[in-house]
Amino acid sequence: MVNLPDYDDLPPAPDGGRLGWHLFGPDDDLGLINLLTAERAAAAAGLVRRGETFPLDAPLGTFSPPLNSARGNPRHHVIAQPGGIGFDDVWDNLYPQAGSQWDSLAHIGYSREIYYNAATAEDILTKGRNTIGHWAAHGIVGRGVLLDMPAAMRALGRPYDPGTTAEFDPEVLETAREIAGVAYEPGDILLLHTGFADWYTRQPFEVRRALPRDLKAPGLAHSEDVCRYLWNSHAAAVASDTFAVEAWPADTSPSAAPFGFIHQMLIGSFGMALGELWHLSDLAADCAQTGVYVGMLVSSPTPAPGGISAAPNAVLVK
Amino acid sequence: MVNLPDYDDLPPAPDGGRLGWHLFGPDDDLGLINLLTAERAAAAAGLVRRGETFPLDAPLGTFSPPLNSARGNPRHHVIAQPGGIGFDDVWDNLYPQAGSQWDSLAHIGYSREIYYNAATAEDILTKGRNTIGHWAAHGIVGRGVLLDMPAAMRALGRPYDPGTTAEFDPEVLETAREIAGVAYEPGDILLLHTGFADWYTRQPFEVRRALPRDLKAPGLAHSEDVCRYLWNSHAAAVASDTFAVEAWPADTSPSAAPFGFIHQMLIGSFGMALGELWHLSDLAADCAQTGVYVGMLVSSPTPAPGGISAAPNAVLVK
Amino acid sequence: MVNLPDYDDLPPAPDGGRLGWHLFGPDDDLGLINLLTAERAAAAAGLVRRGETFPLDAPLGTFSPPLNSARGNPRHHVIAQPGGIGFDDVWDNLYPQAGSQWDSLAHIGYSREIYYNAATAEDILTKGRNTIGHWAAHGIVGRGVLLDMPAAMRALGRPYDPGTTAEFDPEVLETAREIAGVAYEPGDILLLHTGFADWYTRQPFEVRRALPRDLKAPGLAHSEDVCRYLWNSHAAAVASDTFAVEAWPADTSPSAAPFGFIHQMLIGSFGMALGELWHLSDLAADCAQTGVYVGMLVSSPTPAPGGISAAPNAVLVK
Amino acid sequence: MVNLPDYDDLPPAPDGGRLGWHLFGPDDDLGLINLLTAERAAAAAGLVRRGETFPLDAPLGTFSPPLNSARGNPRHHVIAQPGGIGFDDVWDNLYPQAGSQWDSLAHIGYSREIYYNAATAEDILTKGRNTIGHWAAHGIVGRGVLLDMPAAMRALGRPYDPGTTAEFDPEVLETAREIAGVAYEPGDILLLHTGFADWYTRQPFEVRRALPRDLKAPGLAHSEDVCRYLWNSHAAAVASDTFAVEAWPADTSPSAAPFGFIHQMLIGSFGMALGELWHLSDLAADCAQTGVYVGMLVSSPTPAPGGISAAPNAVLVK
Repeated sequence: MVNLPDYDDLPPAPDGGRLGWHLFGPDDDLGLINLLTAERAAAAAGLVRRGETFPLDAPLGTFSPPLNSARGNPRHHVIAQPGGIGFDDVWDNLYPQAGSQWDSLAHIGYSREIYYNAATAEDILTKGRNTIGHWAAHGIVGRGVLLDMPAAMRALGRPYDPGTTAEFDPEVLETAREIAGVAYEPGDILLLHTGFADWYTRQPFEVRRALPRDLKAPGLAHSEDVCRYLWNSHAAAVASDTFAVEAWPADTSPSAAPFGFIHQMLIGSFGMALGELWHLSDLAADCAQTGVYVGMLVSSPTPAPGGISAAPNAVLVK
Repeated sequence: MVNLPDYDDLPPAPDGGRLGWHLFGPDDDLGLINLLTAERAAAAAGLVRRGETFPLDAPLGTFSPPLNSARGNPRHHVIAQPGGIGFDDVWDNLYPQAGSQWDSLAHIGYSREIYYNAATAEDILTKGRNTIGHWAAHGIVGRGVLLDMPAAMRALGRPYDPGTTAEFDPEVLETAREIAGVAYEPGDILLLHTGFADWYTRQPFEVRRALPRDLKAPGLAHSEDVCRYLWNSHAAAVASDTFAVEAWPADTSPSAAPFGFIHQMLIGSFGMALGELWHLSDLAADCAQTGVYVGMLVSSPTPAPGGISAAPNAVLVK
Repeated sequence: MVNLPDYDDLPPAPDGGRLGWHLFGPDDDLGLINLLTAERAAAAAGLVRRGETFPLDAPLGTFSPPLNSARGNPRHHVIAQPGGIGFDDVWDNLYPQAGSQWDSLAHIGYSREIYYNAATAEDILTKGRNTIGHWAAHGIVGRGVLLDMPAAMRALGRPYDPGTTAEFDPEVLETAREIAGVAYEPGDILLLHTGFADWYTRQPFEVRRALPRDLKAPGLAHSEDVCRYLWNSHAAAVASDTFAVEAWPADTSPSAAPFGFIHQMLIGSFGMALGELWHLSDLAADCAQTGVYVGMLVSSPTPAPGGISAAPNAVLVK
Repeated sequence: MVNLPDYDDLPPAPDGGRLGWHLFGPDDDLGLINLLTAERAAAAAGLVRRGETFPLDAPLGTFSPPLNSARGNPRHHVIAQPGGIGFDDVWDNLYPQAGSQWDSLAHIGYSREIYYNAATAEDILTKGRNTIGHWAAHGIVGRGVLLDMPAAMRALGRPYDPGTTAEFDPEVLETAREIAGVAYEPGDILLLHTGFADWYTRQPFEVRRALPRDLKAPGLAHSEDVCRYLWNSHAAAVASDTFAVEAWPADTSPSAAPFGFIHQMLIGSFGMALGELWHLSDLAADCAQTGVYVGMLVSSPTPAPGGISAAPNAVLVK
């Protein structure tokens, strides 16, 4: 098993920050999902007490109109079988990134030129480097840790509205970890509950329709401190109930890289799995009620060869 | 927890066989997935030893050209984001039933007129009765039991070819159970490994292309005895590596109902989840090698409101 | 042949303006396309002199990113046939209204409650009333008349920019007609050349990408005078090189009806065919050079049963 | 204007037959559509007498289930606009070759290695050589000549069934031409009415469903004589109401080339436009009744950049 260095012991990255490449070999396409070993899967199974199962994918079409207006909604056709013996069905216009999803390591690069582990755009398109099929073949089973961000904000006495921008710095993340009552373990899958998705589904159509023109959401702060904190947690993945994990708007311009849009650090440098638009509110309510913030997380990403993204198809079993 | 009656104590069904409706209430849309209680999920977690994870979904596009030629292949577009910061992707023509899948209880009726629990076609299309979203919201976590059918056929001294028709009667199923070394428990998810999918992927294109015109596969025998056997096992689900679970060809004509095409009994009368085209060969090899045929099965079906079918997104953790 | 009344002799419409319904019978689904009789088609053929042919559809994907961001681009897959004998192809996400198109009489109603000739939304969805198939079965062959709006604006000494809002009132339309040197004849297909599409295709990607957030275009003024003018011209159709024929932005709120958004009058009351995003610049240049502004227009709309819109598939032959 | 040589004066083609390449220059992508000059378009307009218009495209979805089972049916979604002002619509799974269509010169090569005018598969896929956009930009306007094949077979005293195989040799074609009462002119668009499509639409579902497994249709004979006849007619295009123009089954194996499957000669060597599954029965009835077999044909193929095929969007005006 690999012992990961601390963030400040990583080599410097060309455009700023530190570089997490090559810790699992030059040809690795999994990134920090490598931390999800059989031993850790077995340990995660040991966390199951009640057997209560929390599905973490929002139903298809939940985020409608789509938050990124270039995508459109999935289209579903039910087809009556000739002869009347039953039904078949088919989907069109299914953008994994329009709903609950994993970003693969092919989604965003460290820079416009280079992706995780030095893969090029060409490597992604022609060799499937970093694409989602690698994770699907490995399986994603580990410990899930819910971080309840509204509770952490409250504990710190900070005002909070899940429908607008808020930046979570390491202090807030630490507070959430303390509320969860856990110490981080390598390979953890952090579940960043912000309340955004729950807020979204309660909005009337007109509010949801206007959102794409001025997207805002709470999330990770745009700072090296947050990157250092996450790397040093040695989490394999961070999934949230927002569309970006990090606070939005971000600054995606090259001049703000790599911390203006920390996808570039988390995915492109660290090889960290980012989950977006997950359904976390039912789980968060149960955690608050039971005081148990951990469980066995099982995700079976759609086995899409060459896929840039995929549904997580995740449950947490407590 | 419901205690299910024996098959012969069920009321007679209108067109033959016995009727498993209404055991979980008149409005139930889950069928035998109701057997997957929290207690059983917790017990399944207790089966995990090594933490070895077996993904059970075949990659999208594995069965190409499609076994049912009306469906076509899924189409994948990778889209470079304007400004060069990364990629997005989208799927069209995605027929869940063209690959690894669960049939929902809306897929096939007990008869042409009526579906599980007395739902009509209209109930399915307008109210979503029996559709896949119900299972996705419940989650599917339980004990998976691999039944190694080629091994059972060998043990019985019967010739066997996974690329053609073979009918598994209760004797073969019992032999497979004995090889697995287990007694059935209510809510089991039986994994019927026939070797078909593995055989398929080793065929050249021309053989695969000709298959849809004369489909053949091993599977459950078309008999009331097999139905009785499965009901009395109190399994929640049966998944196989073929496209039909039951032997093919079946006789889908009304005059052969309900045992000519036992989908009508298993789905339409029992409310049993049928899984098809699952990837079971790696798991079967591990079972044969380790002598351990059970594990924790976690499936997160695509949360498709109104869906007739869905990817199982399943893993077995041993 | 029907002799149409003058606008002011039409009965009043319930929410303002005049009502052009029922002039071709209570069950008519064609509207003013009824004016395109065989006699007029023959007369149009008589206009052909040089045989020069001007295709009036922009290539698929011309307007990208889509002007209405809910639509997305058409997706094209080329499929190599097994055995290497050639290629096949398939299109997904093809929104007729994202490119050159006819709006059918089912696209926009006179009001939110009622469509042309008293059809309801239910009539459209279940009986195909007013949908595009009716025009496709009739065929659209008649006299095309190019109205060169930039030239008319210049002639009137008004400033003009095809990339922003400008309202064409009857005076400008009359000026354009005089430049064309024609008297209107019943059944004319007016081709409103504004220069918008030509301007659009010369813009860099970033300008085109920003457009959907603040759409502007020249077009017909939002007034009863314009409606009266067009009705009294007894044109069958008006097609332009903008996305709306009328000036944009319009006021689509119920309180501004029916002249805030004159689609409601032109389509919903008059039954007039509106063509949008047509390719008119090559034709306009030829008209200016030759002084001949008329020709034989032939359009074969995609024969889409139940279609709301369709590609015009139009040429003008001079 | 090019004066085309006779067939026997063309150079020999590498695998048999004669080669029609390079008559319009080495970079030509239009083939015999080059014969459709402005002069010929003007002459075609001069044929219009009554102004009667015959749409020649069958409605989308006419050939269902698809004759080539790999394709599936087009899927149409009507979308109610938020706020209730009207409807939008979108198509998925639209295979031009599943309905009325032109085959572009990129559809089938002279051989597996080389397409019309020496284009390679790479030229087609990356440079758009021979693809449908070239014809759409040129426009297709010329003289249409209906050849009534059932009438010709009757005149020759040969038995005929439009639902099965029949080979039209030059004698039958000549007979049809004589019935039409015309001499061929360069650039003619021959409309080969066989009665197949009309027969098809009268079959019950079960017959249509079984067809793809044993496709048969009348059409051009598989012979060099037919190729010579067509070339020497100097037609620009041949369109029929069958799925292949030539009799089916053809022999597409390399050993039967180039006359076993004369697509390879007509498209790959001659650069001739082939139209398939056109709606010709209404036109044929009118021709028989009026004795007039010619008219002005106007086709506006879908302007699909890189398209392999396209709807013809054709009418004949008489």
